[in-house]
Amino acid sequence: MQFSSKLIEEAVNEISKLPGIGKKTALRLVLFLLKEDKESTLALGEALVNLRTKIQYCEVCHHIADNKICGVCASPSRDHSTICVVEDIPDVMAIENTAQYAGTYHILGGVISPIEGVGPSDLNIESLVARVAQEGKIQEVILALSGTMEGDTTAFYITKKLKPFPVKITTIARGVPVGGELEYTDEVTLGRSILRRTAYEY
Amino acid sequence: MQFSSKLIEEAVNEISKLPGIGKKTALRLVLFLLKEDKESTLALGEALVNLRTKIQYCEVCHHIADNKICGVCASPSRDHSTICVVEDIPDVMAIENTAQYAGTYHILGGVISPIEGVGPSDLNIESLVARVAQEGKIQEVILALSGTMEGDTTAFYITKKLKPFPVKITTIARGVPVGGELEYTDEVTLGRSILRRTAYEY
Repeated sequence: MQFSSKLIEEAVNEISKLPGIGKKTALRLVLFLLKEDKESTLALGEALVNLRTKIQYCEVCHHIADNKICGVCASPSRDHSTICVVEDIPDVMAIENTAQYAGTYHILGGVISPIEGVGPSDLNIESLVARVAQEGKIQEVILALSGTMEGDTTAFYITKKLKPFPVKITTIARGVPVGGELEYTDEVTLGRSILRRTAYEY
Repeated sequence: MQFSSKLIEEAVNEISKLPGIGKKTALRLVLFLLKEDKESTLALGEALVNLRTKIQYCEVCHHIADNKICGVCASPSRDHSTICVVEDIPDVMAIENTAQYAGTYHILGGVISPIEGVGPSDLNIESLVARVAQEGKIQEVILALSGTMEGDTTAFYITKKLKPFPVKITTIARGVPVGGELEYTDEVTLGRSILRRTAYEY
């Protein structure tokens, strides 16, 4: 593709590095920006630069933060005796959006995956153990990991690491999704949901 | 959606202003950028700021340019006696990609559309007339406008404006697309392609 302008070519090249955006879409976005107010493009450019230069990761839970400690860890209204262990940042956002959890988080930054060369030392597991080791403070660790083999391996590894401490370890419920039909649920999920049936609430 | 970080929220808001990108996609892009090298995000931000602050429009043809005159108008190897009139910048890129045209361009910046409140004075028609008025220089004006009512109206208006000058006015051929099947071509196109049939070349 010929762009007749180095500036456009550069912008298209940079934008098309984003996932799911090819050269054609990038060009469409560039031409859109050229038609819009100058300010909106500058605001976009600045927001991206600020994002990458100013963002920090919480020293406690490794969540993204504007300061040294993230909003959740700094909040006095959250339950600081419970830690929900998740794989990555989108998981925190997903759980926050349910408005059903008031504790703190711990972001591993991935799961143990020998195939992808990710070992326990690549994840934020040591800092989780250190948090739990502060005696008496943490009462429950909730493992909210994916129901994949890698997620299960990681959950097992963390459980083993936390065994010396007097902390309750739980995992999120697996079962038929709310609104899901039995007919279309896979056998493993359905099987587990029968084995781990709960008391009927009415 | 809660982002737990002002920086992320700002970046998501700015990105989601782009066409075809919603909040969810914007967040996915932001989290992607946070995982990538710092340099690539900074390059993207800079490319966008540069795009909007440094870009200029060619004084002759209104095409985007890195200098006062665009690459096409400045090139000595192009045929400066022919002007191809197009609606907007993507049209120039499309024609350039065919590698079938060696003349110059003139970008109108739109077409006459009373419904959208676009009149002849909103378009770069005066500067086209001025270019043609430079006696003897321009020999042919090719109208490469869309085959819509608005495109036809604009073509008619330009033709009328250029009537006083000794210049050949042509329009791009309309007909069945190369590789197109007769059966699936609309009647108007097929009808025109029969009326305006050309000598068979072999």
